[in-house]
Amino acid sequence: MSSVTLDTIRQAHARIKPYIHRTPVLHSHRLSELVGANIYFKCENFQKVGAFKARGACNAVFSFSDADAARGVVTHSSGNHGAALAWAAKLRGIRATVVVPTNAPAPKKLAIAGYGATIVECEPNVASREGTVNKLIAEHGYELIHPFDDDRVIAGQGTAALELLEEVPDLDAVIAPTGGGGLLSGTSLAVKLSQPSKLVYGAEPRGADDAYRSFTTGTLVTEQTPNTVCDGLRTTLSQRTFDIIRQHVTAIGTASEEKIIEAMRMTWSLVKIIVEPSCCPPLGAILEGTLPVKGKRVGIILTGGNVDLDHLPWMK
Amino acid sequence: MSSVTLDTIRQAHARIKPYIHRTPVLHSHRLSELVGANIYFKCENFQKVGAFKARGACNAVFSFSDADAARGVVTHSSGNHGAALAWAAKLRGIRATVVVPTNAPAPKKLAIAGYGATIVECEPNVASREGTVNKLIAEHGYELIHPFDDDRVIAGQGTAALELLEEVPDLDAVIAPTGGGGLLSGTSLAVKLSQPSKLVYGAEPRGADDAYRSFTTGTLVTEQTPNTVCDGLRTTLSQRTFDIIRQHVTAIGTASEEKIIEAMRMTWSLVKIIVEPSCCPPLGAILEGTLPVKGKRVGIILTGGNVDLDHLPWMK
Repeated sequence: MSSVTLDTIRQAHARIKPYIHRTPVLHSHRLSELVGANIYFKCENFQKVGAFKARGACNAVFSFSDADAARGVVTHSSGNHGAALAWAAKLRGIRATVVVPTNAPAPKKLAIAGYGATIVECEPNVASREGTVNKLIAEHGYELIHPFDDDRVIAGQGTAALELLEEVPDLDAVIAPTGGGGLLSGTSLAVKLSQPSKLVYGAEPRGADDAYRSFTTGTLVTEQTPNTVCDGLRTTLSQRTFDIIRQHVTAIGTASEEKIIEAMRMTWSLVKIIVEPSCCPPLGAILEGTLPVKGKRVGIILTGGNVDLDHLPWMK
Repeated sequence: MSSVTLDTIRQAHARIKPYIHRTPVLHSHRLSELVGANIYFKCENFQKVGAFKARGACNAVFSFSDADAARGVVTHSSGNHGAALAWAAKLRGIRATVVVPTNAPAPKKLAIAGYGATIVECEPNVASREGTVNKLIAEHGYELIHPFDDDRVIAGQGTAALELLEEVPDLDAVIAPTGGGGLLSGTSLAVKLSQPSKLVYGAEPRGADDAYRSFTTGTLVTEQTPNTVCDGLRTTLSQRTFDIIRQHVTAIGTASEEKIIEAMRMTWSLVKIIVEPSCCPPLGAILEGTLPVKGKRVGIILTGGNVDLDHLPWMK
């Protein structure tokens, strides 16, 4: 069970402020006209390591006592969280180990190693991943910083929404992309505990819609075979994130791959920013009409900007 | 001869402020490390119509008396200035006509027409362009707003540098891409007349290096056969912009097409923003070592973000 409160999120914000970027909020008149809602993008694609994950990892690493920090940290991630933890650990001057599947793309591993973390490979399945992580913890006493099933991480991710509400106080709703649910649960706590009249929505690819199914059936879906270009959203919720989302989120919208790619291209060409596919289910869901935000003032938290520029999803 | 002063630029800023975006300044630690200079990007790619040209066009259109404004405006442009003038004229509620060559790309014409301007086509050569413009002026009494050879436009373009210096006061130098020289002359006036100790540089593609040749020989080059991906930088300076640049600019750097494309890709992948090729000679020149800014704090004015996402220059 989570014990994250508005205070925890505010403390997290004070803790990580010296290290993270206060990312800008961008608005495109033309895009808003086209989609029929006033959209404000919180640009975590400009965040350190190119993703909001810097917030949660930084909060976790800087919340330890010196003695605990000295033991070092470990996580498993083939994506932005691994790089974020490596970055945060380097800032604090402690050791980080990241368990990555053998099939992880080389640039991701390079980014993690670039921040000075140790990479340990595992087979690309849950059993091997957890076995490898547990072995490292048993042998070295590392502290696990889970990518999303961790209160310190959830509180850190919630800080992006705090900044967004400061910048654009009169939003009607905030939407966050949904993978493991760390960003959505942190966002929903930050928004609903401070301004209960605002709505919070999740959005995910139809090809990885475990959160939608969990939310609408009331039963946590723990397995799925994801089929989506959004590589950051292929995981399922944990019990912890599901409980928070059930309590504070109004609905989860889904978007087809086609609408996600359309949303991505629209953001590139009209907002002039590089967003990764995992940013795009919120706008995709609006385009598809699966979230009731027409005519509203809507904040969207963009997850990151780490994209392979040689392989863009609209190119065959 | 130009009569633009620091006061004119400040008045321009006050005049256009209600209509333009105050664009953010972005910094990437990693990019700065890679190029060996601390780079601050003034993001005019986020400006209205996707380009700094909104500033000069808006200043020109709003500096008229009502009587003069009622006559309507005309310009020639196949690029961002045409769209910018159309946008500004629409804001003021006056008629705009844009002369474009028959071979201009369809999306550019669509953008101009989208803001409600009338498009008149000419043959793709200087004689036909000037003949068409002069005929329109003679017949309708339109006021010509030249893309760069116009004090009102130059003063407007200078306002981006004013904002940049407000945001990052301790810059050592500012670099602007150089085509007709409107942005560079406005920038150099804004910087040197307010803070004479700072340096201003121009940067242009080696395949359209008229400004470099004019600057280094002291004789205005008025013809060239441009060969560059930077479609906004193919024109030559005018006597007016050349005179300003000679007086206030320290040097003009040049960059190969290869370095320009490398700079563009670097900006996309590390700063996470969409910049058009014409933004990239400044960073390209730094990468190539043709501007002496190693270890310095450098502002770069990004011209715009209007890019064909189906045809990126690093894709074959």
